[in-house]
Amino acid sequence: MPVYLDHAATTPISGPALAALTQELSRSGNPSSLHGSGRRARLVVEQSRETLAKAAGAHFSEVIFVSGGTEADNLAVKGLYWSRNSADKHRKRILVSTIEHPAVQDTVEWLVAHEGAEAVWLPVDADGVLDLVAYRNALDDDPESIALVTVMWANNEVGTVQPIAEIVALAAGHGIPVHSDAVQAFGSIPVDFAASGLAAMSISGHKIGGPVGVGALLLGRAVKLTPVQHGGGQERDVRSGTLDTPSIAAFAAAADAAVGQLPEEMARLSGLRDDLIARVRSEIPDAVLRGSMEHRLPGNAHFTFPGCEGDSLLFLLDMAGIETSTGSACTAGVPRPSQVLLSMGLDEDTARGAQRFSLGHTSTKNDVDALVAALPAAHAQAKQAGMAGHVSSIQTAATQDVQRKPVGKL
Amino acid sequence: MPVYLDHAATTPISGPALAALTQELSRSGNPSSLHGSGRRARLVVEQSRETLAKAAGAHFSEVIFVSGGTEADNLAVKGLYWSRNSADKHRKRILVSTIEHPAVQDTVEWLVAHEGAEAVWLPVDADGVLDLVAYRNALDDDPESIALVTVMWANNEVGTVQPIAEIVALAAGHGIPVHSDAVQAFGSIPVDFAASGLAAMSISGHKIGGPVGVGALLLGRAVKLTPVQHGGGQERDVRSGTLDTPSIAAFAAAADAAVGQLPEEMARLSGLRDDLIARVRSEIPDAVLRGSMEHRLPGNAHFTFPGCEGDSLLFLLDMAGIETSTGSACTAGVPRPSQVLLSMGLDEDTARGAQRFSLGHTSTKNDVDALVAALPAAHAQAKQAGMAGHVSSIQTAATQDVQRKPVGKL
Repeated sequence: MPVYLDHAATTPISGPALAALTQELSRSGNPSSLHGSGRRARLVVEQSRETLAKAAGAHFSEVIFVSGGTEADNLAVKGLYWSRNSADKHRKRILVSTIEHPAVQDTVEWLVAHEGAEAVWLPVDADGVLDLVAYRNALDDDPESIALVTVMWANNEVGTVQPIAEIVALAAGHGIPVHSDAVQAFGSIPVDFAASGLAAMSISGHKIGGPVGVGALLLGRAVKLTPVQHGGGQERDVRSGTLDTPSIAAFAAAADAAVGQLPEEMARLSGLRDDLIARVRSEIPDAVLRGSMEHRLPGNAHFTFPGCEGDSLLFLLDMAGIETSTGSACTAGVPRPSQVLLSMGLDEDTARGAQRFSLGHTSTKNDVDALVAALPAAHAQAKQAGMAGHVSSIQTAATQDVQRKPVGKL
Repeated sequence: MPVYLDHAATTPISGPALAALTQELSRSGNPSSLHGSGRRARLVVEQSRETLAKAAGAHFSEVIFVSGGTEADNLAVKGLYWSRNSADKHRKRILVSTIEHPAVQDTVEWLVAHEGAEAVWLPVDADGVLDLVAYRNALDDDPESIALVTVMWANNEVGTVQPIAEIVALAAGHGIPVHSDAVQAFGSIPVDFAASGLAAMSISGHKIGGPVGVGALLLGRAVKLTPVQHGGGQERDVRSGTLDTPSIAAFAAAADAAVGQLPEEMARLSGLRDDLIARVRSEIPDAVLRGSMEHRLPGNAHFTFPGCEGDSLLFLLDMAGIETSTGSACTAGVPRPSQVLLSMGLDEDTARGAQRFSLGHTSTKNDVDALVAALPAAHAQAKQAGMAGHVSSIQTAATQDVQRKPVGKL
């Protein structure tokens, strides 16, 4: 078994989630059917909705089940834009941070290219924290023209946690709805939808020990939103499509377990992470930790290694049985520097040396030990390859067993 | 265990699908990750893509995995509309049958209300077969202005199979792309994407013995389509979102099993269905079979029962342990007559008496026997209630154990 240090990409399904999933898979019934099997499935969906709502600090009527974080982000950003714009055609501006996941970033860009929206890209500081002065200025500059604000709760690459309460408070002064992609935050740090004041919040199953293919948009009861996916009128007509009872039950069980163990698990993971950071720095003195030490996800450790290509280091660690990520997209073997790191002020060469180690519910001290044991040799070889321009040959060797596709962002 | 005669709404997961799902659930890895676990998951996705493509008569590069039939329909209709309209602004017309599933119908209506499209609703005959003369006239009336044609392969309520080859051939003369919702057809009758000449075709996992929450759009290699869901760029950039490896593997296994057994299963189910139809007619002489006898899904039997409310009959059968459907949507206990039946020329009162019995892979002669045994008493009581206007009290009694929601279409 390889050592898995990529929990931010996906984390193994948890025991409670697998039990709920297995139980539901042995049954059948469409929750939209009126007969007994349908009503039984509907009851499971509604009980799961209550469980999930409680875990996220929401009212059960605020939970819209969708297929995952990407769909939740698309629904929130397009849905809020269309709804606010149709109520007032002057509302064309979308305030959006430069470090958003592509599910938000590409959605905003589509609204600009296709629907006449205007994006205002909000800068972050060197730690990846939103620049609140720039944000306030963007808000105050014609607030009537702003359709929505969207800022992620915690960043998927460097793990920086944003000041969501302040972001919402500033927008609230102008009555502007705020969406947050909380896919990385929910289940990892305390997240309370009601207390946050957010209009909408995206969460995902497979990042918290639930199955892939399920997520939710939490949507304030008073918030109007134009649906993106049309059909049978499920989920208050906001999201049509047959409800996936087994995955919904498993998602709720995973959320309940993750949130129930949150204080202990945060302490455990941040302890492991701090050990990992200290030992990586000790082994590789020129490694630079990226992101904030103060406002950081417990499971995230992200470094740049000067003179290394991140992909090269990834493949060398993989050959040594350690699974990591560069944290950013790559297409057909052509590495691109992370937009998040560039936004934090890194130059392209430095950004190319990124490596993300992310811990989760199955992580142990043995995983950290294994990384620390393997890293020096992999790092030395990656640095040598980086100097000599041998990156692509390493990648080719490591990936010749699978047809390379555009890989998408994690 | 109730007798389940609602396979068109959802059918229990098949053995091969459950085995594939269970196997993948014991593993992890995001198919977009570059390390070993990610590449292993990617390999499963690509092998599943090949399996599914083979089962559907498509090239593997034509399979776009999505979250289900509703998403596939939304993606096809919006994506083709936007793509064709952006290439030529005159292309505003969508030719669409009056018997489409809401996932197509509501999507078209949204494009009309929101994006300036014009819908041309194509009539059907008394059996629910597309009126090819009206269709040809609609095509010939300014073909340059047509963005796309969308006609379902087989209807979800009355089971009528459409002349897809002729529909495609007529459109091909004008170079117009045709989409078909084949959610009910695929796995039940022979469906060959390449031979059909369709530009796009929607299929769903949970209608063929796969899991809920997964489906595919088959999309011709030369067909351009604007994405609906934006993000990480998975699935050729046509559909972003983390690939759901376990569900995809199970969907492919279900498709392989269903298509592999198709001739035998078609014969078995149509035999059961013909027996069901004959015996229902014998017990209830005024029952009227709806849809085509010649062009019909093997597992579909759909009747109207004069003087009965369909919902009333549904609840009475349910109390007798027989699970059926009216086939159409109902909101908060207010039955609405089926748009499909109205399009076939039925009046509202007649349409309200609809009852769909749908068979699938777990159906046996015992199920038919049980229906035939229970139907006369349920029918008599439903007819009495219908005459006396007691429908709502029966519904209230039958559904007091679950909070009623808008139920969506199946």
